[in-house]
Amino acid sequence: MNQHYGKLFEVQLAGESHGSGVGCIVQGCPAGMPLAESDIQAELDKRRPGQKLTTTRNEKDQVQIKSGVFQGKTTGAPILLWIDNEDVQSASYEKLKETPRPGHADMTASAKYGGYNDYRGSGPFSARLTAALVAAGAIARKLLAMQGVEILGHVQQLHGIRTDVTDAQIRDYAYQSAVRCADPKIEKKFQDELQSALKAGDSLGAVIECRVNGLPVGVGEPRAQSVESVIAANVLAIPAAKGVEFGSGFASAALLGSQNNDAYEEKNGKVVTRTNHSGGVLGGITNGMPLVFRVAFKPTSSIAKTQITLNTKSHKQTELNVAGRHDPCVALRAVPIVEAAAALALADLMLQAQKIPKVLK
Amino acid sequence: MNQHYGKLFEVQLAGESHGSGVGCIVQGCPAGMPLAESDIQAELDKRRPGQKLTTTRNEKDQVQIKSGVFQGKTTGAPILLWIDNEDVQSASYEKLKETPRPGHADMTASAKYGGYNDYRGSGPFSARLTAALVAAGAIARKLLAMQGVEILGHVQQLHGIRTDVTDAQIRDYAYQSAVRCADPKIEKKFQDELQSALKAGDSLGAVIECRVNGLPVGVGEPRAQSVESVIAANVLAIPAAKGVEFGSGFASAALLGSQNNDAYEEKNGKVVTRTNHSGGVLGGITNGMPLVFRVAFKPTSSIAKTQITLNTKSHKQTELNVAGRHDPCVALRAVPIVEAAAALALADLMLQAQKIPKVLK
Amino acid sequence: MNQHYGKLFEVQLAGESHGSGVGCIVQGCPAGMPLAESDIQAELDKRRPGQKLTTTRNEKDQVQIKSGVFQGKTTGAPILLWIDNEDVQSASYEKLKETPRPGHADMTASAKYGGYNDYRGSGPFSARLTAALVAAGAIARKLLAMQGVEILGHVQQLHGIRTDVTDAQIRDYAYQSAVRCADPKIEKKFQDELQSALKAGDSLGAVIECRVNGLPVGVGEPRAQSVESVIAANVLAIPAAKGVEFGSGFASAALLGSQNNDAYEEKNGKVVTRTNHSGGVLGGITNGMPLVFRVAFKPTSSIAKTQITLNTKSHKQTELNVAGRHDPCVALRAVPIVEAAAALALADLMLQAQKIPKVLK
Amino acid sequence: MNQHYGKLFEVQLAGESHGSGVGCIVQGCPAGMPLAESDIQAELDKRRPGQKLTTTRNEKDQVQIKSGVFQGKTTGAPILLWIDNEDVQSASYEKLKETPRPGHADMTASAKYGGYNDYRGSGPFSARLTAALVAAGAIARKLLAMQGVEILGHVQQLHGIRTDVTDAQIRDYAYQSAVRCADPKIEKKFQDELQSALKAGDSLGAVIECRVNGLPVGVGEPRAQSVESVIAANVLAIPAAKGVEFGSGFASAALLGSQNNDAYEEKNGKVVTRTNHSGGVLGGITNGMPLVFRVAFKPTSSIAKTQITLNTKSHKQTELNVAGRHDPCVALRAVPIVEAAAALALADLMLQAQKIPKVLK
Repeated sequence: MNQHYGKLFEVQLAGESHGSGVGCIVQGCPAGMPLAESDIQAELDKRRPGQKLTTTRNEKDQVQIKSGVFQGKTTGAPILLWIDNEDVQSASYEKLKETPRPGHADMTASAKYGGYNDYRGSGPFSARLTAALVAAGAIARKLLAMQGVEILGHVQQLHGIRTDVTDAQIRDYAYQSAVRCADPKIEKKFQDELQSALKAGDSLGAVIECRVNGLPVGVGEPRAQSVESVIAANVLAIPAAKGVEFGSGFASAALLGSQNNDAYEEKNGKVVTRTNHSGGVLGGITNGMPLVFRVAFKPTSSIAKTQITLNTKSHKQTELNVAGRHDPCVALRAVPIVEAAAALALADLMLQAQKIPKVLK
Repeated sequence: MNQHYGKLFEVQLAGESHGSGVGCIVQGCPAGMPLAESDIQAELDKRRPGQKLTTTRNEKDQVQIKSGVFQGKTTGAPILLWIDNEDVQSASYEKLKETPRPGHADMTASAKYGGYNDYRGSGPFSARLTAALVAAGAIARKLLAMQGVEILGHVQQLHGIRTDVTDAQIRDYAYQSAVRCADPKIEKKFQDELQSALKAGDSLGAVIECRVNGLPVGVGEPRAQSVESVIAANVLAIPAAKGVEFGSGFASAALLGSQNNDAYEEKNGKVVTRTNHSGGVLGGITNGMPLVFRVAFKPTSSIAKTQITLNTKSHKQTELNVAGRHDPCVALRAVPIVEAAAALALADLMLQAQKIPKVLK
Repeated sequence: MNQHYGKLFEVQLAGESHGSGVGCIVQGCPAGMPLAESDIQAELDKRRPGQKLTTTRNEKDQVQIKSGVFQGKTTGAPILLWIDNEDVQSASYEKLKETPRPGHADMTASAKYGGYNDYRGSGPFSARLTAALVAAGAIARKLLAMQGVEILGHVQQLHGIRTDVTDAQIRDYAYQSAVRCADPKIEKKFQDELQSALKAGDSLGAVIECRVNGLPVGVGEPRAQSVESVIAANVLAIPAAKGVEFGSGFASAALLGSQNNDAYEEKNGKVVTRTNHSGGVLGGITNGMPLVFRVAFKPTSSIAKTQITLNTKSHKQTELNVAGRHDPCVALRAVPIVEAAAALALADLMLQAQKIPKVLK
Repeated sequence: MNQHYGKLFEVQLAGESHGSGVGCIVQGCPAGMPLAESDIQAELDKRRPGQKLTTTRNEKDQVQIKSGVFQGKTTGAPILLWIDNEDVQSASYEKLKETPRPGHADMTASAKYGGYNDYRGSGPFSARLTAALVAAGAIARKLLAMQGVEILGHVQQLHGIRTDVTDAQIRDYAYQSAVRCADPKIEKKFQDELQSALKAGDSLGAVIECRVNGLPVGVGEPRAQSVESVIAANVLAIPAAKGVEFGSGFASAALLGSQNNDAYEEKNGKVVTRTNHSGGVLGGITNGMPLVFRVAFKPTSSIAKTQITLNTKSHKQTELNVAGRHDPCVALRAVPIVEAAAALALADLMLQAQKIPKVLK
């Protein structure tokens, strides 16, 4: 299990779905940044279950800052964050030991850890851990905001339905919408789709788009620490994420060079590109245009529908009904998680590029 | 510039397109593995230019093993590989200093490195560096092959044309085909498409698919070192790569959970899944099914067609004709590069999971 | 502040002297190891203040395992440990803001972190953090013990007095002795020395020796991860440690090669050396002989005696009386800390050398 | 074998004593630094054998810069340095396969690498590799010099003889002296001592002292990346180094706190300490005073005298005469190596503390 992210802005996660809680230690945050639990809570509330259309698990996700902050400001020392688990019902998971749920880590985790893994709700594999990631991301996000960087995520596509929205729409609407849809005209369609999936005991995949404005030119250490590499590694560590693309991404495979190249021009004394097929990154380095990427999420693996699996003890095929509380579409709660994963990557790369000082004034 | 890959199987690249050569140091290869320059040369020859439909730059790419091998076997010490540049024509690049080429790293590199970057052919940003990556990957590949792991890459999609092939077809045909097309019936269409692009002074995007067979269950350190995270970071460090997906990837966003979940069954005493939408990875860990991923490559940025750019000195819009030797589709040469990037990731993760011993017998 | 140790057996510390507590996350511990809070508590009790001759700060240092253990065994997931601070009296430190204490990090921390550092008892610089290190070390230690590795520390030298003891004496006596002296005949002298220092309002330096038995041949990754390099880095991160030596160490500078070289011989079918001037390490790799190293600790910086310092606001020389609770010799409590630092280094190197499996049976 | 140093200023070494040469890749050097082969050669010449009283192996150690420098300046890309081996006589080492030399890595390397290690002159374990370290260090050193940092090394103690010198003496005399003795009055004694050792077919240990002037306050990331930890790890990776101490080091173990604490005062508007027992580091962070440390070197393991060892094939005790060319005291050539190890550590920590910009003007 490797839950350590970053080189200069480092995050180490810990915790389990059905243990005492989840938490993390953030190392490398510059000193002098104002930080309160409420800053972090605001981000956590964006991914909190207990909303309609997401799992019925009901937790306050109250974060505690246990170190690294003194007199309201970061000290430069590691910041330990902790969130207690409150609403734990583990009984329902006991029977899963021998019948691995399709799409989950049950089988692979058991094989890898010799059966010693905490299998309750997949333990450390649970999306519950992303609460700690979002908490850490809230710190990165605040740090970036102080440098004028804005991160905007939304559900761009749900099942077959795709939206096409402006930054302003994302800002105004995405988090107002229970389904994280930034287009009020499409939102109802998202909800209908989710209701039918729920009714059918099924789940839906989705694509989250994330746009980052205000990044300076020159962020990203080409090749292994390219903007794309670091963001991709972070977002693909989110449960259920199965693909990532930057700018035109997979669509660029069907384009001509003359279509895909972004012509340079000058605007208000700043070098910009007319189009943004590159998604704001050239040679692994930000070019000053908005950074744009999309993450594909598979449908929630836990579905109410009866499924076929193998009983690994009896070696016989068996029917499986996954009890418990599950989202019809994991991506709905994943918007702040993707934003957090991006924030962690970018805070790290900004520090690597010395675009953020070690002491903030 | 961060050209360091891996945690236990480490690669540090160096070199420039128009300098004395390119090379790397591989650290962490177990002792006792037979290794000759010819093993590496075989892989290098797969990406060598000088073939029809790729750049006319003509180099032998002769690799030298400068350390780490003794009496025909690896010693456990770092292996330094070096490839001299032979066919360097840098004159044509001089004028690019003030007129950054669209789609290239010219502008971002100049901004990041204060104008001190080697701008000839983009220097260290050049795809030339991937020769060193392929050389390092050849070592990883041999190490994996000794554990029964097979890596199969091919151009699955060129511009709008997509193939659907079997492993056997990739094995037999992909590297026989000048356009890395594993389907003999489609190959001609690929070539026609490339010829028209060349004639139009344009270039094409493509998708490379890579399949890895024979991986044991349990490879991948969940979250930050998940199979998806590490492979994604490596392949997105390849010039022109703009997206990556695993298994059903972006298509899974349009699927129902009941469609996308892979049911378990037992076959010949082994736990397998009936379908492979997961692409062989669950919870970041291999499940014993073939690992399948795809990488989107944008069209070659250098095109013969006249383009618009900015003269960064005069601050005026200007026309740009990129001279030099360029591929109509970078992805054609990228097949062994993607395979190498995957091999490096997997050799590293196999060592992390202790699936490869430190001394080979 | 970099409180991250290790490559495969990783520890990330957090916490402050006068904050809510101290803790850590341990990542990389193999799955299947029995682990209870009592295992860790046993080590913590060895460094606990509240004993005669150490600081009068009185805390139970009760450790909580918050993650990574399920049904009494490690799961392979990160282990979060937390210890609440109980007996915090921070008022006495307020005045130190402007008058840095000689020998402490007050001045350097304030300069480095722009005055945002938690200056109460030096915050994260405090030896209090070593409770978290010892807690993490307890896990490493148990892991090593399962491989037959034994770690023996004691105060070899106090001020001018030096002992010369056997392994058996250390085993039987070091932790029985309040002054960690393994020689019952010398113990009284240690105590007298400490009493006079206390009476004089002064403090004493010391040397801790650590011996590690049972290490297999072949541990240590030569050069940057040599046994000496990794242990030295860990022990010199302990507050007040100012030197480290292996085997004959500094004394070997005054020896001839013919005196210092250890002749090989065979004993019970095992290759051993007649002497052990190397301290069990050759070329950075263990040779199967006992690993022996010594760590020099400066006298406690906090002394009751009036000292001279600078008032950094008034720029005037001033007298300073350091209130608070302080040990006459930090090294007395540092024995289990040095042992923990060594255990962390060796667990990491054993994993790097694949001498410990990823799943324990 | 781990020959990778540093976090932001990274060095990866490669090569063997009796292979084609030694080299390294330096990653993370800021762009815009003037760098010529002559800059590096100057440092290499300081450790070059072929001087009286050091080994008779005679090589020019001509360094080649193969990448990362363009138009006389660093580009920000990795810098590959290579030095060919010229004077290789490996025949004399063949018989060592079965009779490990006392004090060398022969036995441990063979055990660790399953007998696949290059045993000729200990291959990658050879002090020959330090040529690559010195070459890399030359780059770090130039970078530091541009920030006003000066590094001064000398042999402070040879066998039983100790010197006590000023910075000026080191500057003027250490590298003028064939025995790296900064005190002209003591130099003759050093030489006599070495001559007797040579005549006796024996070797001598020594202590190298290193002083670093001009470091700003605030360098060092406390605990795992403390100034002491990083320097210690680097210098203990040098063959034959067996101990390191900072400031008063081991002597402080015999001091009182009131003696060892350095009182603060102000001098020319700068906070300084009256004494420098701390060696310029408090809490792992530089305090602006000279950084002072000492490294203990054991006597050269290769001696002309007949030694006893084990024939590992026949399992019988045997006499061993080590042929080849050897220094009577390794430390004589180690002065620039220790300086290089310190330079690498400090360049890295200066970058971590953002005390060196990413682009130099």
